[in-house]
Amino acid sequence: MSNPMKAAIIGGGVIGGGWAARFLLNGWDVIVSDPDPEAERKVGEVLANARRSLPALSDVTVPKEGKLSFATSLAEAVADADWIQESAPERLDIKHAVFAEIQAHCREDALIGSSTSGFKPSELQQGAARPEQIFVAHPFNPVYLLPVIELVGVQETVERAKEVLENIGMKPLIVRKEIDAHIADRFLEAVWREALWLIKDGVATTQEIDDVIRYGFGMRWAQMGLFETYRIAGGEAGMRHFIAQFGPCLSWPWTKLMDVPELTEELTNMIADQSDAQSGMHSIRELERIRDDNLVAMMRALKGRNWGAGELLNQQDARIKPSLPTDVDAPFTTLERVIPIDWMDYNGHMNESRYGQVFSDAGDVVMQMVGADPDYIAGGLSYFTVSNEIGYLSETHLGDVIHVRTQVLEARGKKLRLYHEMMRTADGELLATCNQLLLHVSLETRRTCEPEGEVLTRITALGEAQSKLPKPASMRD
Amino acid sequence: MSNPMKAAIIGGGVIGGGWAARFLLNGWDVIVSDPDPEAERKVGEVLANARRSLPALSDVTVPKEGKLSFATSLAEAVADADWIQESAPERLDIKHAVFAEIQAHCREDALIGSSTSGFKPSELQQGAARPEQIFVAHPFNPVYLLPVIELVGVQETVERAKEVLENIGMKPLIVRKEIDAHIADRFLEAVWREALWLIKDGVATTQEIDDVIRYGFGMRWAQMGLFETYRIAGGEAGMRHFIAQFGPCLSWPWTKLMDVPELTEELTNMIADQSDAQSGMHSIRELERIRDDNLVAMMRALKGRNWGAGELLNQQDARIKPSLPTDVDAPFTTLERVIPIDWMDYNGHMNESRYGQVFSDAGDVVMQMVGADPDYIAGGLSYFTVSNEIGYLSETHLGDVIHVRTQVLEARGKKLRLYHEMMRTADGELLATCNQLLLHVSLETRRTCEPEGEVLTRITALGEAQSKLPKPASMRD
Repeated sequence: MSNPMKAAIIGGGVIGGGWAARFLLNGWDVIVSDPDPEAERKVGEVLANARRSLPALSDVTVPKEGKLSFATSLAEAVADADWIQESAPERLDIKHAVFAEIQAHCREDALIGSSTSGFKPSELQQGAARPEQIFVAHPFNPVYLLPVIELVGVQETVERAKEVLENIGMKPLIVRKEIDAHIADRFLEAVWREALWLIKDGVATTQEIDDVIRYGFGMRWAQMGLFETYRIAGGEAGMRHFIAQFGPCLSWPWTKLMDVPELTEELTNMIADQSDAQSGMHSIRELERIRDDNLVAMMRALKGRNWGAGELLNQQDARIKPSLPTDVDAPFTTLERVIPIDWMDYNGHMNESRYGQVFSDAGDVVMQMVGADPDYIAGGLSYFTVSNEIGYLSETHLGDVIHVRTQVLEARGKKLRLYHEMMRTADGELLATCNQLLLHVSLETRRTCEPEGEVLTRITALGEAQSKLPKPASMRD
Repeated sequence: MSNPMKAAIIGGGVIGGGWAARFLLNGWDVIVSDPDPEAERKVGEVLANARRSLPALSDVTVPKEGKLSFATSLAEAVADADWIQESAPERLDIKHAVFAEIQAHCREDALIGSSTSGFKPSELQQGAARPEQIFVAHPFNPVYLLPVIELVGVQETVERAKEVLENIGMKPLIVRKEIDAHIADRFLEAVWREALWLIKDGVATTQEIDDVIRYGFGMRWAQMGLFETYRIAGGEAGMRHFIAQFGPCLSWPWTKLMDVPELTEELTNMIADQSDAQSGMHSIRELERIRDDNLVAMMRALKGRNWGAGELLNQQDARIKPSLPTDVDAPFTTLERVIPIDWMDYNGHMNESRYGQVFSDAGDVVMQMVGADPDYIAGGLSYFTVSNEIGYLSETHLGDVIHVRTQVLEARGKKLRLYHEMMRTADGELLATCNQLLLHVSLETRRTCEPEGEVLTRITALGEAQSKLPKPASMRD
C-alpha cells in the first residue's frame, strides 16, 4: 500500500488506546475521537507502554510508525477511515448514538468494529443505516500485545475484517454464532464467579487464587489451551477416553455456579483489601510494565518454539516485506529494531552474541538487495560469513531502538566485504562496528565460486558505487 | 541430609510417575508400588520426559538423581518412607483400603499425601488408624514441571508437608477450608462446563476455544493470575473500581452454568472428532514433549524476569547449596548441568555466548571453594575475569548433560589462572575448553591487590596442590 491505511479510534481509554497503538505501530495513521479532555494524555500513556514492548516481539525491521492525531469531532475522525473502532462505554443507547453518527459521516466501505465484551452484533446493529457494516471486534487487554480478537457479524464483513487484522499481526477468530459475551468472556465470567465464592467462603485469598492459577494450569493454557491439554491427559486413548474418565465429574456437586454471590460492601472490601496486600507494593503503571515484560519474554520464548502465540510472531515477521535500500550512493540502513528483553544478560547488558546476530541480519539484507534470496540459495549458491571482526564501543540497553548503517568495502568476484555500524537511533551514538567478510560458495561442491547471473551484475554494481566512498569514520579511528 | 530421603509412590500412572520423577530428580530415593505389570514401563516413560525438562529449569548443579526401585508389595514400599504419595483411582472405597494397608506398615511420622482431585481429607480419613497423618496433596500434570500443590488437612501435618515440598522446588498452597475439588479444579470444572456448551451449541470448536485461551487470557494467567490482571484493568482506582465497573455483569444472563450438558454419544463424538482435527497430527508423546519444551521455555523466560514460576526457580537455585569439591589432588568437577532450550540458536546449536557463561559459572565455584563468597565480596574484595580463551571442539545439543573439569594452573598472589574442560557426561566427549585468567581486585580502589586472610591461605594451598599436576591433555594438543 502506498498511502498509509487510516484507523479512527472512537473512545480513547485503555482499550481504545491499545487499538490506537496496535494500528500505529503497524504503520497505520490513527485519528482518535474522545470528548474526554484527558484523552490525549491517556492514549499517550498506553502508547508509551506499547512502544517499549510490541516492536520488541519482532526480529525484522518493523513498519514505520504511523501519524497520530486527535479529532475535534467524530465526523472529522471517521470521514476517510478504512477501519473505525468503537470503544465507547458498555451501554447500548450510547453505542447506538455513536454508530448513527459514524455512519452519517464515514465511507460505506469502511469497517466498523465494536470492542464490546457483552453485546451481540444484532443488538449493536438495531436501527443502523447500514447494519451489515457493524460487527463485534472484541480485543483483550493489553490490546497491543495479546493477539486474539473475537469477530462476530455478517460473514462478508468479518472476513474482510479478519484479513485486515491478520495483516497487523493479530489472531482474529470468527465466532460461528452470536451469543452474549462471545466466547472468552463466558470462561472469564465462570471463573470470576467461582473466585468470588472462594473468597466469600474464606477458602482462599486473591493471592492464593492467583498463585494456584499462575503456578499451575495458567502455564498450560498459555500455550495449549483446554482441549489439547486434556487430550494429553487422556493419553494414547485420546479425547474419548478423557471424557469417559472425567466427564462424569460434571454432575458432582463441586461448584456453586448456579448461584451468584451478592457483591455486598463486605465482600467488595474483602477482595479489595486482599488485592492491596497482594499487589499494593506496585503502582498500576509498574504492574503494567511487569506484565508487558513477562508477556514479551514468554511470547518470545514461544517464538523460539514456533508454537501458539510464538508461531504467529514468526508468521508476522515473514509477512513484513523488507523495504530494501535503493539509494546506494552513500552507506545505507540495513536494519532497524528494538532490543528485546530476552537479549539481556543477567547483569542488564545486551548479550555479546546478539551483536553478532544483528550484524548477521544486516548482512542478510545486503544479500537480498543483490538477489541472493531464498530462491537463489535453493538453486545451490550462497554467501558464507567467513569472519566478523566486532568492535564493542558502548552499552546497549533494553528497549533501545537501534539501526545498522552498512557500507560495501569490496565486492569483487566471490569476495564481499561489508562494514556495519550499529547505532542507537535516539541519540545516534555508535554502539558497535563489524568488519564482515563473506565468500560466495557453491552449496554443492562446498567451495568458493563466483556469483551467477543477475546477482553477479548487481553485487558488482553495488561494489562499484560503494567502494569509492570514503571509509566510515569509525574505521579510520 | 546425609542419607537420602525416601518416597513411596503408590500408583504409578501419569500422576504417580510424575511424583516419582519430581522426588528422584531432587535426590530422593523412590520406591513404586503398583499392581499393574506395565507400571515399570509407564513410570520409565514419564521419567524420560522429566529428565529432559526438569533439570533444564536449573542453572546450578542439581542434586544427584536418587535410586528408583519397584516394590513387590505395598508393605515393602512404605516401610521406611518419609513421604508416601497415594495416586490410586478416584474411588473412595479403593482409597480407604489403600490407606489402611499403608498405615499398617508405615512409620507413624511418615507424611501420607493423596493426589485426589475431588475428595476432602475428612472423607479420605474415614476409618483411618491415624486420621491426622493423611492429607490431600493435589498436583497438576505434568507434576515434574508445574510447581503448584494444593495441601488440605490437619494444620501441623500440612505445615510439615509444605516444608518438604518447598525443598524440592514446589509451590505448596495450604487450602484454608476443605471443600469438594479444592480450589483449582473448581475453576477447571467451570471452564469445562462452559466449553461443552459452546461445542454442543455449535458456537466454537475445540481448536477455536483453545485459540481464544492461548492467544488471549491464558497468557495473562500464566504470569499474573486472575486478580492481579483485573487490578490492572481497574486502573489506579484499583480493585474497588474494577468491581464497581464489571461486578454487575455477573447478574447478566451470559452463561449456561446453572445447567450441565448431557454427555451424549453425539456430543462425545463431536468433541473427539474436533480434537482429532486439531491435534491428531501429533502423537501424545510428541504433544507431551512440545508441551514440556514450551513450559520450560516460558518458565525460564519468567526466570529472567524473576516473576511467578520464574521467581520460584531462582529461589530453588539459591536453595541448592553447591557441594564444593574437596579432593584437589587431581582436576575437580566444578559444574554439572543440562543444556536448556533457551540456550539454543535458531540453527539448533548452543549459542556461542553460553560457553562463556558455563566457564564463568565454573570459575565462580572455585571462588566459593577458597572462600571468596558473597560475604567476602561484600567486604570489598573480589576476583575479576580478565580473559577467557575458549576453544570450541564439538557441538553441544539440547538436553545434553555436561560437566566442567577444572584445574588450577597458577595461583600466586593476585593472579589466578584456571583451565576448564567442558564435557558431555554421557560419552565423555570434550566439547570446549577455556583458559581463564582472573585477577584479585579491591572493589574500592578498582585496582588489583593480594587476597586477604583465609582466602589467601586457601587459594595458595589450592595452587600448590594443583599446579604440579601435569597439564590437561587438551592443553598439550
